[in-house]
Amino acid sequence: MNAMFDDWGDTPVATPKTTGGGELPPPAAAHLDGEAAPRPSELRPPNLAPIRAEDKRIVNGHTDINQLAPFKYPWAWEFFLKANRNHWTPTEINMAQDVQDYHHRLNPAERHMFENVLAYLTTSDILAMRNIGLAVMEKMTAPELQIYQARQVYEEALHTWTYQHCIETLNLDQEDIYNRYRVVPAIYGKIALANRRLEKVLCSGLDLTHRETLHEFALSYFFFAGIFEGCWFYNGFSPIFALQRRGLMKGTAEQFQYIMRDEVLHCAFGLRVVRELLQEEKIAFDPAAVAEMWQEAEAAEEAYARYILRDSILGYSADLHIGQFRFVANRRARQMSLAEPFPGAKAELPWLDEQANLRKEKNFFETRVNEYQTGGTLAWE
Amino acid sequence: MNAMFDDWGDTPVATPKTTGGGELPPPAAAHLDGEAAPRPSELRPPNLAPIRAEDKRIVNGHTDINQLAPFKYPWAWEFFLKANRNHWTPTEINMAQDVQDYHHRLNPAERHMFENVLAYLTTSDILAMRNIGLAVMEKMTAPELQIYQARQVYEEALHTWTYQHCIETLNLDQEDIYNRYRVVPAIYGKIALANRRLEKVLCSGLDLTHRETLHEFALSYFFFAGIFEGCWFYNGFSPIFALQRRGLMKGTAEQFQYIMRDEVLHCAFGLRVVRELLQEEKIAFDPAAVAEMWQEAEAAEEAYARYILRDSILGYSADLHIGQFRFVANRRARQMSLAEPFPGAKAELPWLDEQANLRKEKNFFETRVNEYQTGGTLAWE
Repeated sequence: MNAMFDDWGDTPVATPKTTGGGELPPPAAAHLDGEAAPRPSELRPPNLAPIRAEDKRIVNGHTDINQLAPFKYPWAWEFFLKANRNHWTPTEINMAQDVQDYHHRLNPAERHMFENVLAYLTTSDILAMRNIGLAVMEKMTAPELQIYQARQVYEEALHTWTYQHCIETLNLDQEDIYNRYRVVPAIYGKIALANRRLEKVLCSGLDLTHRETLHEFALSYFFFAGIFEGCWFYNGFSPIFALQRRGLMKGTAEQFQYIMRDEVLHCAFGLRVVRELLQEEKIAFDPAAVAEMWQEAEAAEEAYARYILRDSILGYSADLHIGQFRFVANRRARQMSLAEPFPGAKAELPWLDEQANLRKEKNFFETRVNEYQTGGTLAWE
Repeated sequence: MNAMFDDWGDTPVATPKTTGGGELPPPAAAHLDGEAAPRPSELRPPNLAPIRAEDKRIVNGHTDINQLAPFKYPWAWEFFLKANRNHWTPTEINMAQDVQDYHHRLNPAERHMFENVLAYLTTSDILAMRNIGLAVMEKMTAPELQIYQARQVYEEALHTWTYQHCIETLNLDQEDIYNRYRVVPAIYGKIALANRRLEKVLCSGLDLTHRETLHEFALSYFFFAGIFEGCWFYNGFSPIFALQRRGLMKGTAEQFQYIMRDEVLHCAFGLRVVRELLQEEKIAFDPAAVAEMWQEAEAAEEAYARYILRDSILGYSADLHIGQFRFVANRRARQMSLAEPFPGAKAELPWLDEQANLRKEKNFFETRVNEYQTGGTLAWE
C-alpha cells in the first residue's frame, strides 16, 4: 500500500506526483531564502511517492536523504551492523603491567619508538575523524552510507579516547605528545600530506558534478581509506605489536589490536565506496596521480620509520617496517584493481595479518606466540 | 619538558616561536593552493609550542584542532565518557511480544498513533544526525567538543537502527513509514521547521565572526538541543510509554527509553555549549526571535498531537501531550535563564521524568507501575 493514496485527514494536500520522488529539492528548500517564512500551519508537504532504491546515488543523488529504506547499498548497512558487533572501550583492558614495562623495562630506543608512535596516532585519529565526519559524510547522498560513516566518526573518537587513556595511565607529558607532530619533521610529513588532501575536499560547496573535482574527491577518499587507514594505520601499530610479542606493553598492544580491527573495516568500507563511486560516475583514476600518491606516501612512511626506529629494537627495524608498508600497499592497489605500486614486495611481518583479524581472543600472543614465530623474521632470544 | 626544545634529529627546523600556538593557520594550509606542492621531504613543521587551554574557543578559535589536551571544557569530555557508559544496541531487547501486541491487541486508534510516531521518529533521527554531524560539529574549534558530538552523531545513527529494527520486527511497510513525513501535513510541519533551521546553518562557509550569523547559529543549536531533542524527542516517546504502562508494546517502549536517555544527554550537552558560547562571544538571544521559535514549535507540536491522537487512547490524549510539551519547554527555557514561554503549565505526565532518567533498570514498569500510577493522570481500568 502506498502511503500517498491514504486518507491523511486534517488538511488538503497538493496533487500527488507519481515520479520516483528523486527530482525535487528537499521539502524545506523553497522557504530558505524568503524573509517572510510561512507559518507552520501554512507548510504543505510535497506529497511525493516513496523513493526508489535504484535512484539512490553515492554522490550527486537527488533522493530524499531522510529515507533509509529501501536500501540500494545493503552492504553498507551490513558494515554498520558488523561495526556495532565489534564494540569495545579502552577501560576494559588492564594497563597495570604497562606502567611497569614503560618505566622500568623498555630501553631508550623502545621508549623513543613508543612515544612517537603514540604522538603520531593521537594526531592521526583526530584528523581521521575530521576527514570522515566533515569532508566525506556530507557528500554522500544515500543515508545507508552516512549511517556507517556516523559509526566510523565515533570509532575515531573512541580511538582518540584510547590514546588519551594510554597517555594518562602511563603518565606521559600530554602537551608534548599532542604537539609533537608540529615539531618532529618525520611525523609532520605524514600529517601534512593528509591535511593537504583533507583541505582540498573539506569545503561543502564542492561541485562533484565537475569531473576534475569528483576525481579529486575520489582520490582523497582512496587516500584516507587505502593509505591513511589501510596502510599507515594498518601497519602503524606493528612496532608496538613487536613489543607485545616479547611480552612488553601488552595492554597498549591489545588496545591497538581493537583499533586495528576497526581500521580494517574502515579501509574495506572506503575502498568499496570508492570502487562503486568510480563505476557509478563512469570515471577512472588518473594513473599518474595515483603513482604520485604512492610515492609520496612511501617517502613519508620511510622518513617516519627511520625516525621512530633510528635505533632498531629487538625483532623490528625500519627496513622491516618499510618493506611491510610496500607489501600492504600492493594489496590495497589490487583491491582497487590498480597496478601494484611496489612489485615484488614481500610480507616482512607474516604475523601482522593475524593481529588485524583478531576476534576478541584476548591475550592472543600469550598463548600462541610460538606458532607465529616460525614464519616471521622475529629474532627471538 | 617542552617538546619544542628537544633534539628531534634528522632535519633542521624553523626558529621556534614562543607564542601560544594559536595564531597561525593549520600547518598544511600554506600548500593548498599552490600548483607545485612541495615534496614530503620538503615539508617543514611549524615548530610551535603546545596550545594553551585558555586559548581554546567554542567557535572562531585558532588553536590547533588536533590537540585534545589540555582541556578547556573538561565537562565535554565527561559527557563523552558518560555517553559511552550508556552503550546499548536494539538487538539486546526482546521484541517478541510486541509483534503479537501490534497485530492483535492494539486498536485502530493505537495503531494509527504508533505508526505515525514511528514515522516521525525515523525522519527526525536522520535529520538530527545530519544536524550535529554536518552543521554543528564542523564549527566547533575545540576538539573535546567535537569528540562528544562524534559520539552523538553515532547515537543518532543507533536510534535510526532501532526504528529500522522495530519496522522490520513488526513487519511494517517501510517505504510507507519513511515517506510519511512527505505526505502527512502534521508530521511534515515539524520536519520542515527543523529543516529550515538546519539549512540556514549547514553551509561550512558560514562566517561566525559576524554577529548576526553567530546569533542564527546559536539559536539553531538551541532549537535542536532544547526543542527538537529536549522537548519534541523528550516527550515524543510518551504516547508509546502510555501503551507500555498498560503492558503493551513493552519492547518498543524499552528501546525508546534507551533512546530517551541518550536524548537527555544531547539536550544537556547542547544547552551547556550554547550557554557558554553566548558568554564567550558576549551575545544574548533576541527575545523576539526566541518567542517566535517557541510559538512555532508549539503550533507544530499541537498539529502533530491532534493528528496522532485524533482519537484519544486509554490514559493519553492530545491535550495531555500538548500540556506536557509546554511544561518541558518551560524547563528548557529556565535552563537557559530565559523567561518561561508558557507560564503556569503543569506536569501532565508526572511519570515521564522517571522514564527519562532510567538507568538500565530493565522492565521498569513491570515491577514499579503501581507506585507511579498514583501521581499520574492515567485512567486505569
